[in-house]
Amino acid sequence: MTSERQAEALRALLGSDRPARAMGAHSPLSARIAEETGFDCIWSSGLEISAVQAIPDANLLTMDHYLRVAADMARAVNIPVLADCDSGFGDVNNVYHMVEQYESRGIAGVCIEDKQYPKLNSFADGKEQHLASAEEFAAKICAVKAAQRSASFVCVARTEALIVGAGLDEALRRAEIYERAGADALLIHSKARTPEEVLEFTVKYSGRLPVVVVPTSYPSLHYTDLAAHGISMVIYANHGLRSCIAAMRATMERIVDDGTTHFLEPELVSIGDVFAMQGVDDMLRRSRNFEAAGARYVEGCAPLSRPNAAVEIKAL
Amino acid sequence: MTSERQAEALRALLGSDRPARAMGAHSPLSARIAEETGFDCIWSSGLEISAVQAIPDANLLTMDHYLRVAADMARAVNIPVLADCDSGFGDVNNVYHMVEQYESRGIAGVCIEDKQYPKLNSFADGKEQHLASAEEFAAKICAVKAAQRSASFVCVARTEALIVGAGLDEALRRAEIYERAGADALLIHSKARTPEEVLEFTVKYSGRLPVVVVPTSYPSLHYTDLAAHGISMVIYANHGLRSCIAAMRATMERIVDDGTTHFLEPELVSIGDVFAMQGVDDMLRRSRNFEAAGARYVEGCAPLSRPNAAVEIKAL
Amino acid sequence: MTSERQAEALRALLGSDRPARAMGAHSPLSARIAEETGFDCIWSSGLEISAVQAIPDANLLTMDHYLRVAADMARAVNIPVLADCDSGFGDVNNVYHMVEQYESRGIAGVCIEDKQYPKLNSFADGKEQHLASAEEFAAKICAVKAAQRSASFVCVARTEALIVGAGLDEALRRAEIYERAGADALLIHSKARTPEEVLEFTVKYSGRLPVVVVPTSYPSLHYTDLAAHGISMVIYANHGLRSCIAAMRATMERIVDDGTTHFLEPELVSIGDVFAMQGVDDMLRRSRNFEAAGARYVEGCAPLSRPNAAVEIKAL
Amino acid sequence: MTSERQAEALRALLGSDRPARAMGAHSPLSARIAEETGFDCIWSSGLEISAVQAIPDANLLTMDHYLRVAADMARAVNIPVLADCDSGFGDVNNVYHMVEQYESRGIAGVCIEDKQYPKLNSFADGKEQHLASAEEFAAKICAVKAAQRSASFVCVARTEALIVGAGLDEALRRAEIYERAGADALLIHSKARTPEEVLEFTVKYSGRLPVVVVPTSYPSLHYTDLAAHGISMVIYANHGLRSCIAAMRATMERIVDDGTTHFLEPELVSIGDVFAMQGVDDMLRRSRNFEAAGARYVEGCAPLSRPNAAVEIKAL
Repeated sequence: MTSERQAEALRALLGSDRPARAMGAHSPLSARIAEETGFDCIWSSGLEISAVQAIPDANLLTMDHYLRVAADMARAVNIPVLADCDSGFGDVNNVYHMVEQYESRGIAGVCIEDKQYPKLNSFADGKEQHLASAEEFAAKICAVKAAQRSASFVCVARTEALIVGAGLDEALRRAEIYERAGADALLIHSKARTPEEVLEFTVKYSGRLPVVVVPTSYPSLHYTDLAAHGISMVIYANHGLRSCIAAMRATMERIVDDGTTHFLEPELVSIGDVFAMQGVDDMLRRSRNFEAAGARYVEGCAPLSRPNAAVEIKAL
Repeated sequence: MTSERQAEALRALLGSDRPARAMGAHSPLSARIAEETGFDCIWSSGLEISAVQAIPDANLLTMDHYLRVAADMARAVNIPVLADCDSGFGDVNNVYHMVEQYESRGIAGVCIEDKQYPKLNSFADGKEQHLASAEEFAAKICAVKAAQRSASFVCVARTEALIVGAGLDEALRRAEIYERAGADALLIHSKARTPEEVLEFTVKYSGRLPVVVVPTSYPSLHYTDLAAHGISMVIYANHGLRSCIAAMRATMERIVDDGTTHFLEPELVSIGDVFAMQGVDDMLRRSRNFEAAGARYVEGCAPLSRPNAAVEIKAL
Repeated sequence: MTSERQAEALRALLGSDRPARAMGAHSPLSARIAEETGFDCIWSSGLEISAVQAIPDANLLTMDHYLRVAADMARAVNIPVLADCDSGFGDVNNVYHMVEQYESRGIAGVCIEDKQYPKLNSFADGKEQHLASAEEFAAKICAVKAAQRSASFVCVARTEALIVGAGLDEALRRAEIYERAGADALLIHSKARTPEEVLEFTVKYSGRLPVVVVPTSYPSLHYTDLAAHGISMVIYANHGLRSCIAAMRATMERIVDDGTTHFLEPELVSIGDVFAMQGVDDMLRRSRNFEAAGARYVEGCAPLSRPNAAVEIKAL
Repeated sequence: MTSERQAEALRALLGSDRPARAMGAHSPLSARIAEETGFDCIWSSGLEISAVQAIPDANLLTMDHYLRVAADMARAVNIPVLADCDSGFGDVNNVYHMVEQYESRGIAGVCIEDKQYPKLNSFADGKEQHLASAEEFAAKICAVKAAQRSASFVCVARTEALIVGAGLDEALRRAEIYERAGADALLIHSKARTPEEVLEFTVKYSGRLPVVVVPTSYPSLHYTDLAAHGISMVIYANHGLRSCIAAMRATMERIVDDGTTHFLEPELVSIGDVFAMQGVDDMLRRSRNFEAAGARYVEGCAPLSRPNAAVEIKAL
């Protein structure tokens, strides 16, 4: 899918009555599983991508790295990819450059947050976190909108006002500013253990932007609550990876303890299942067709005129 | 430019009465100079790209590397990029995968040659070179045509029949097969010191494909000869890089010999000129506009409705 | 760890009486879990790495890609990384180039297999697989040994004789040739459902090379069988990833079905656990120390002489 | 060469009585030309590397990109590579991570400057530039020294005090602080048209650090002036690239104007010369030896014991 069609699909999800479900992913494989499970779009998760590298989620990995993973995922699935772009990897110039790159690689939209560069994961303790000024962040939103080529490309503005303890009023003030500046959706982030403050935000927010939530710290939020509060999208940002870590630990411990993988096999997907996710059979079928066609063209037994040949090959 | 429009532009060049000029390049900077000089398209040259890495042109660099350079060039210019893809980096499956990647990165078309993998540069002595079978190569052409999403994407089939000494008849036989298999243009390569054998090919070739030539070893071929022989495109494949090497050697020697760069300055482009090629002023102007807009949105003095805001920002 | 010390460690594992356990991994995170679980070394698995990209294990991903993943893993763990290098990504020149690259990136050794390029995963049906000639593969082993800078770098020669149905005698003949050519260890691969043919090989093999096995298709092989048959290393090549896929599917389905992640939480590792694997606290502690030291140097209250300063800082 | 030996070589250059000459480079090819010309070390130039990408020198390219180019150059030459690392790509955590990466990739040392992230090229007009606080920059120097594994790895601290107009006294104050914090050398940057302010700095500077200068804007500075002022290293930071641009423009214009490359040939290096810089003949000679050896091992006519075989192969 081109970036433009992906962007249109993401925009449609945000505009729909039914809350969209986004699933955090960190690889084409995890994105494909999310797609097969029925999720509506992929959240190219900064936490997951940095965790897979065993490196803190603190802008140590570069835009090049996050971009490559997001682009690889966009190639592998037919649902749109919304990219977690932290605070935009620097200033307005970095944001402009970033959007040129992300859009050209098939990404449907970017989410930028109003913290300073380098950002630190919102759930990390041990360091005071600071908001960027509203002016600076509004300028970044302008940079996104000016850089995008397709009208449909999506800019999700994420405010960390609740994360840094700036309060609900500041979150609402920023929501209004970001909407004016051109944002296409608003992500209200929270690290509270319950959804109250996020839900209170949705009640008081009078703007027109679709609202996105990320119930990592408040897992009790139920899907049925979303529509009731006018929430447009929910992002399950890191649960896939957290299940992977648990599974790999258990599996590897079992291998050492059992001395064999025999008893583990029923809990694993088969090699054939892995191959299917890689598209091995599709590849082999295609290659047999190409080789047969190649032989035919040489034998002279298929002196097709070019237009017909193109049609025929296209159907392989 | 999207890959599709780039592909259409390349197709138009190949179909035009005026022979198109392609310039070999190895970086966005060299591609941009070629564009500014008036060349019609960019040849993402395998020799240049490997030479810049100081690594033999023998498929030691991988598809990832060639793809990244070609994609970076496509981003930097408005003329189409035709990618030198050697023998397709493996078998039909590699070719299929390659086209998916190249097309999604904004490349207008690929050129594949009928040698085996790993290829060795056609001008290298010291190792006998072998053609792939016509069947195998025809299958690769089928793979290109099946993999491309846009109808305009271009497949240039390059025959090395003259390079390996297989003779004119074999070159003509392969031209016919490759045309049947769906190639969009034919590159007839030669390492002769004069253009005779290439021109003889053009006289005897009765097919309908546009013909492309690469006068590296036969520099006497003049542009005016091309139209006379129905040649559609000429690729000056490596002259930019060869001038760079000469210039860097001379400059560096002068620095050591002179003990200063004072006398060299008139022969160099200025730092300001370098900045201009990087777009520094454009970036700074844009960033000032974003910052001014950001400040306005916060001050509340520009409570624009979103649609108008988008229009205004777009004009920054 | 430098490549040299990693290589020495891998060599020691292969020379030990106790069979070494290698765990397949595809990312720094999975490698770190394997290290924490007690595995002796990491198998940078071609199948896992390609599966994560949702691309067939057929040399569609390039050496650059496999190298980057293997190098990232080597950075993240203190146990050696043995890299699955398929058939060496081409001919002897590719192998020579490959070893220069892998060794310089901290990899302890490479495993190359005697199939042709592009390779197809040994367990894939639907295409007949062919061995490279023994001459060609012996030449590749020579290329590895000539390219390595450290005497300890390890070349594991993997024969696919049993995989392609060439029989036990051919496997034994090749084992002898590969040993003569300089291989440091021998991997005997099999896709039989039981370990018989592999164990028969170990009984008949009279050479001096350490033997490595990969019990993917014959999971009943027990660790206690290895020493009894003089096997030096067992590679559990893909079980970590296969458990990930199962876990992600189950988790994602539960999210959709439950409408919340609340009930899933107990099965997932915590965010704090993810942070610990990323080293977030270590990073924050270090940065506080740097900032405190920076302030001291400016205040002039710590006019340390440089040598002492260096010592002090090193202890941060 | 390993990073450690490269670092020792760079340290020796900085400690020598004879001023060292560093040449700016942007690719393995340009680095190799500098080495062949007799330069002592390579300056992995941020300006050159960004200019080659036709992207402003403003931290739009990421650390990954600069690192890859620097590492590729380090692989290609036997003289040390000093990497221009701008302001360290972020905060102290970015610097720590950066040094881990650069040192593991064979780089001899890094140069960081006391501007804020994202940096803008020091010669760019149109935007006021600001220094980072001395505290912040001293903390970054501490981060470099704590991250390096080899005692020899070099940290060049570059002060932009003169660039931003903060004056000579501030430059001297910062020099003292940076020395205390553990810097191994001091780069005093200037955009004056004459060398006076830089030379005045060297006269007033009473510290013990080697001093490095970059006479881009003051080309009249002569090599013989350096020793007289106790300057340890001079960096010719961008002249190679500036000669390339001039050469490519002239060459490409000539191709269009002449209609042939015939008259240009004498000004270009030959294809054979390009091959020599790529090491094509070395590669082909090696591959013939590997293939001959491979054949011998199979024929059984060379049943060498392994240790001898290794010796023999090593000599190929």
